[in-house]
Amino acid sequence: MAKQYKTAIQPTRSEDYPKWYQQVIKSADMAENSQVRGCMVIKPWGFAIWELIQKELDKQIKETGHDNIYCPLFIPQSLMEKEAEHVAGFAKECAVITHHKLEEDTNSDRKGALKPAGKLEEALIIRPTSEAIMGPLFSNWIQSYRDLPLKINQWANIVRWEMRTRLFLRTSEFLWQEGHTAHADKSEALAHSKNMLDTYVNFVQDYMAIPVIPGEKSENERFPGADHTYCIEAMMQDKKALQAGTSHFLGQNFAKAFNIKYLDKNTQEQLCWTTSWGVSTRLIGGLIMTHSDDDGLVLPPKIAPTQIIIIPIIQKEQDQDQILAYAKTISNKLSKLEYNNDKIKVKIDTRDTKTAGKGWHWVKKGVPIRLEIGMKEVEQESVFMGRRDKTNKERESVNLDDFITQAPEILSQIQNNLYNKALKFQEDNTHVINSKDEFINYFSEKNKNNAGFAKIFWAGDSKLEDEISKKYSISIRCIPFNSKKGKCIFTDKEGVEVIFARAY
Amino acid sequence: MAKQYKTAIQPTRSEDYPKWYQQVIKSADMAENSQVRGCMVIKPWGFAIWELIQKELDKQIKETGHDNIYCPLFIPQSLMEKEAEHVAGFAKECAVITHHKLEEDTNSDRKGALKPAGKLEEALIIRPTSEAIMGPLFSNWIQSYRDLPLKINQWANIVRWEMRTRLFLRTSEFLWQEGHTAHADKSEALAHSKNMLDTYVNFVQDYMAIPVIPGEKSENERFPGADHTYCIEAMMQDKKALQAGTSHFLGQNFAKAFNIKYLDKNTQEQLCWTTSWGVSTRLIGGLIMTHSDDDGLVLPPKIAPTQIIIIPIIQKEQDQDQILAYAKTISNKLSKLEYNNDKIKVKIDTRDTKTAGKGWHWVKKGVPIRLEIGMKEVEQESVFMGRRDKTNKERESVNLDDFITQAPEILSQIQNNLYNKALKFQEDNTHVINSKDEFINYFSEKNKNNAGFAKIFWAGDSKLEDEISKKYSISIRCIPFNSKKGKCIFTDKEGVEVIFARAY
Repeated sequence: MAKQYKTAIQPTRSEDYPKWYQQVIKSADMAENSQVRGCMVIKPWGFAIWELIQKELDKQIKETGHDNIYCPLFIPQSLMEKEAEHVAGFAKECAVITHHKLEEDTNSDRKGALKPAGKLEEALIIRPTSEAIMGPLFSNWIQSYRDLPLKINQWANIVRWEMRTRLFLRTSEFLWQEGHTAHADKSEALAHSKNMLDTYVNFVQDYMAIPVIPGEKSENERFPGADHTYCIEAMMQDKKALQAGTSHFLGQNFAKAFNIKYLDKNTQEQLCWTTSWGVSTRLIGGLIMTHSDDDGLVLPPKIAPTQIIIIPIIQKEQDQDQILAYAKTISNKLSKLEYNNDKIKVKIDTRDTKTAGKGWHWVKKGVPIRLEIGMKEVEQESVFMGRRDKTNKERESVNLDDFITQAPEILSQIQNNLYNKALKFQEDNTHVINSKDEFINYFSEKNKNNAGFAKIFWAGDSKLEDEISKKYSISIRCIPFNSKKGKCIFTDKEGVEVIFARAY
Repeated sequence: MAKQYKTAIQPTRSEDYPKWYQQVIKSADMAENSQVRGCMVIKPWGFAIWELIQKELDKQIKETGHDNIYCPLFIPQSLMEKEAEHVAGFAKECAVITHHKLEEDTNSDRKGALKPAGKLEEALIIRPTSEAIMGPLFSNWIQSYRDLPLKINQWANIVRWEMRTRLFLRTSEFLWQEGHTAHADKSEALAHSKNMLDTYVNFVQDYMAIPVIPGEKSENERFPGADHTYCIEAMMQDKKALQAGTSHFLGQNFAKAFNIKYLDKNTQEQLCWTTSWGVSTRLIGGLIMTHSDDDGLVLPPKIAPTQIIIIPIIQKEQDQDQILAYAKTISNKLSKLEYNNDKIKVKIDTRDTKTAGKGWHWVKKGVPIRLEIGMKEVEQESVFMGRRDKTNKERESVNLDDFITQAPEILSQIQNNLYNKALKFQEDNTHVINSKDEFINYFSEKNKNNAGFAKIFWAGDSKLEDEISKKYSISIRCIPFNSKKGKCIFTDKEGVEVIFARAY
């Protein structure tokens, strides 16, 4: 198909996917790298999306009986030392605080030079996750079975010292939500960790229009210190997997390390069973890579800071008042309507810029519906509508009253279209692989950009998984829930269906 | 007046104010100290109050044209070195990151011992405020006058290495909101810094029912790097002042340090004028100390996570169903009503605890209205109402329908009563002082617990202020806006009215 216009994003997805990703973020003005290695600045458009994610998820987390709290940013080194496996997983990539002031550096030639001073007796690390800080709290707060279940959530910033970073997907500092719960019964705790994964499935699919595969991680991919790690895996447009959220059944590991005990009804001391689960600003990376096209960001209406943008096209100065008044009328009518149990989010583009290209600004920002209005529309009482789930060429003139009536339904259609398109892509690029040779071919160098998700029967051990993972730069993304059973293509032993893929 | 019961909080305010403060927080289960020196854990009841503060302030900040963003937690040492005065103010009390991992400490006998490793080339500090990280961003983002004003806000955690800490009032890590703006005109920037102070005045008075005195800080008390610092000062029940919020006009100081420039309409390069302003979790400390009594926390309805608590009093097992059904009916009716443009926040106390003392739990948590219901109330179709702005002895039986009709109005009365009571206390304890002798007597050791705010005419210099401040452990809290003029009681020169007081 011949291109009618230069795409708004260069390079395109097919030309250079990683660069395309960066350009989408830049064109939509969502975030940028800061002067601090690996840390990003989340700009207004990106942060408004995060606020919408927070608002809905926070509501759902509260509705399931969790209270929000705030715990310290710092973890004393001694607390980190308590859970050996956890330490091994996180101590290698954390920010370590060793001093509590800066003072003048008299040995330096640099004007105003400073140096660290006031050495701390014990180093502190910045939370890479908060199990180690919540542990002692839970131990204090829980006395008897009456205090259980204890269900806590926190929205916080997290630091993991990453070597290779990418905006939203992997940054040294990121924002997230982390839930922590303690239970009297193993079965209750296990069920809770799965229920919270369900909450993520519903939110990510229903709000972000990202289809996901829920399942369990293999031992190799488990959270350090967990007995089971459950996850949701999404497929990006380069066919790589993105882990979009995790929920951990921590067994009694942290309860033992931090002495989290309760007195049961017979006043016998018992260890608790704990869970933790989280999603982060990484979700925004997944959102971008699931829906965006070569013209920029595409936002599902439920997660769009602006759902409908009205763009006045003023070609003659004398038309300005009439066009702006018309825009105001449309805005007033639309903002009284509801979509997804909330008022429709409509804005008028009042920027003082030239007419040409005004629409592209909002295409690149991914706004679901654009309404261009000039004198023609004022006279016809119509709007010139562009939908972000269609190409820019498919814009059409619609009678204003008709549009007002249909607006909530159109938003709903766009939301569904994006989900269905992404689901079809995921399904089209998921293949059942029946033999070792086929598997090797599927993930071979020459197929690098074609391979998607490979479903195979697997009964391999951790060592074999490691070997295969390294050789093909892939990993077991998850063992989907209720997986079928069958003969392992590597070991011929009875195994379960798992998904192998390259991943972010 | 003879006490009819032991107060819920021991010690009382008059016995030991600082300990009373701690006990109020403990009894209401709002927060606690963590294992990390100077850092607090904000528990569900305390955090729910912070969420209500955030929700309303965030709305007001957005309505005045600010966008939320998120900036990195870290400031490279070199950026801190740029604004000399700013450095002098903050470098002495910051958390310094020098390493990026922990590794096994083979020299230690401790099991699993770790030590910092991976030394950073440049130390990072944790933001004690974000001017130094916003500076380079503003410098990049602003090109022309069209980009101005730039109005940004962020909700974040902040670290200042405090030596003496107190829950909410002064903690090494705290939560806050910090606004940062850049303007083309000096007058616009100056006006904006005052407008944002007005936002704080309105919010703190209207929502938190804390009367405040807005004004300007003296040079000694100014924010490091600011040309003017505006503030709101509140009076606590021990008659000490609490700075509840500040807004800084930064002149061109940060614009010079960080090269924040724009091209004006004549394409001439100009320096910007910047402002910054913030309020923090300290507001919760002020809330506690303004309204609480010897029975615990007292919450203004607009900032109460639960505005009405329904407490079923079940004396016989067989009455349970009827009483709980009645509670549910009341709850349903109340939760349909509105107060302050929001649904009334009503809860039923469903805790499985003994009847006695159930009410006290909610007294101590400061819930504005308590409704106790037992069989008597079921039969009479009434509620036994306690109001947190009255004593526990003043509870009364009210016909249910009457209560439902009046509920929003009663909440409104409580909100006003708390504000008026606090205002009267502030006025009663603010004294105009006309001579140096009177001043010395007012702040003398023997009057330590009686002195409140002293209004005096002042024309002293920074040195004299310092001398007086140290001698009497007081400071100039502010020069109220539109202060009267008169002869300084220390220097006889023409001066303006200022407020001296002891302060948190």
